[in-house]
Amino acid sequence: MTYCVGIEVDEGLVFAADTRTNASLDDVRVYRKLHVFEYPGQAVFAVMSAGNLATTQLALARIQRDVDDAAPRNLRTFRHLFEVAEYIGQVLVSSQVDTAGRPEFEGISTQATLILGGQVAGERPGMYMVYPLGNAIASSPETPYLQVGESKYGKPILDRIIRADTRLEDAARTALVSLDSTIRSNLSVGMPIDLALIRRDDLRITERMRLDADTPLYSDIHANWSRKLTEAVHTLPRFPWELPQD
Amino acid sequence: MTYCVGIEVDEGLVFAADTRTNASLDDVRVYRKLHVFEYPGQAVFAVMSAGNLATTQLALARIQRDVDDAAPRNLRTFRHLFEVAEYIGQVLVSSQVDTAGRPEFEGISTQATLILGGQVAGERPGMYMVYPLGNAIASSPETPYLQVGESKYGKPILDRIIRADTRLEDAARTALVSLDSTIRSNLSVGMPIDLALIRRDDLRITERMRLDADTPLYSDIHANWSRKLTEAVHTLPRFPWELPQD
Repeated sequence: MTYCVGIEVDEGLVFAADTRTNASLDDVRVYRKLHVFEYPGQAVFAVMSAGNLATTQLALARIQRDVDDAAPRNLRTFRHLFEVAEYIGQVLVSSQVDTAGRPEFEGISTQATLILGGQVAGERPGMYMVYPLGNAIASSPETPYLQVGESKYGKPILDRIIRADTRLEDAARTALVSLDSTIRSNLSVGMPIDLALIRRDDLRITERMRLDADTPLYSDIHANWSRKLTEAVHTLPRFPWELPQD
Repeated sequence: MTYCVGIEVDEGLVFAADTRTNASLDDVRVYRKLHVFEYPGQAVFAVMSAGNLATTQLALARIQRDVDDAAPRNLRTFRHLFEVAEYIGQVLVSSQVDTAGRPEFEGISTQATLILGGQVAGERPGMYMVYPLGNAIASSPETPYLQVGESKYGKPILDRIIRADTRLEDAARTALVSLDSTIRSNLSVGMPIDLALIRRDDLRITERMRLDADTPLYSDIHANWSRKLTEAVHTLPRFPWELPQD
């Protein structure tokens, strides 16, 4: 499995992804799932991937090749983010080998799902989930985050905190808590965590870091988040029988 | 679906369950999933159920009939909680009609899973998950809670907070937050919530309440938990670029 989350707030975009790839419980490796494409002053994109690793590596290699070869359609030629989503969807579809219906490949899926976020000069930042069929949905004020992979454990914290006016760094801290909750609960999601922030109108990757278990920010979340939650639970209202009696 | 959680702490046991039963998105009803059996001074039990409603209703009716008829084996005759788990497992198995392998019932499951908790005089309290096969596992200091149904959304909050020395009422507040997170995310889990507490050595149901959306304690969680979490996220360490520069 995998867990990647992308968040869109007024101040910009946050991307956070784990790095564990597994074919089975005893075949576990570390692969980057968060990839960035920077054309400073013109456009900036980040792509996170879940699903078949051969598919996502092929798709990313083709996207980079199209830029390097200055192909008629490449990341630098689009004026709108939705066109980038459409292009990436087409690359994704062509990178998925069709194994459906071939009995020797039964149970093997070459599908992958991508989260694309970024900004093209002249537009506001945006974020899309690109499905295996090549179609895409955008994040929105009502749904300001997108998840791929093992999404359930890390969803409640996003629902409770992320609003359009959440500060960019607080959104990033929330993403790390969401990742930490998921890593605790699903062995197929693992450290280190890749994190990237794109501040609105920077038109570059504003900040980028890889967090390991001993990175101070992450080790503090892991060690102290329980205590903060325990305090928060303790400040919830008393039950009727806990109140002083007349 | 369903979501029930049982928590075992040093001070006693907490049981919390939703009440939504659905056959499909447009066939939704309210049914109690938390059932209590009290024999004050002798023994007290609570049973929560997930799975086929006909199965769980039949199992609970048989358990009650065995008590009423003073059957050789009934809830009042056991000296150990593990024997109660064994007995309930047998009742559960016999209440599940075997539809496996009959093509006309393909895709229909009569299976159910139960959480049993309680205390028999002379023993400490305990809690068991009773599986459709009739076998059971107990909660433990390392795993002080048991869940059935849609368990993923509500698991991280339990992992972060529940310890053996958590106060009984704080464990109950945590269970309500866990339920609220799940209700937000899965339409097949719904209000009202049934809650029961068994304080150690009380040998009766210590407290019991049904919480609806407008019950003050619950409406406060629903309205203010986000704010408490937002404050907690904001107190996590700063990123390096947020710190004052030399």
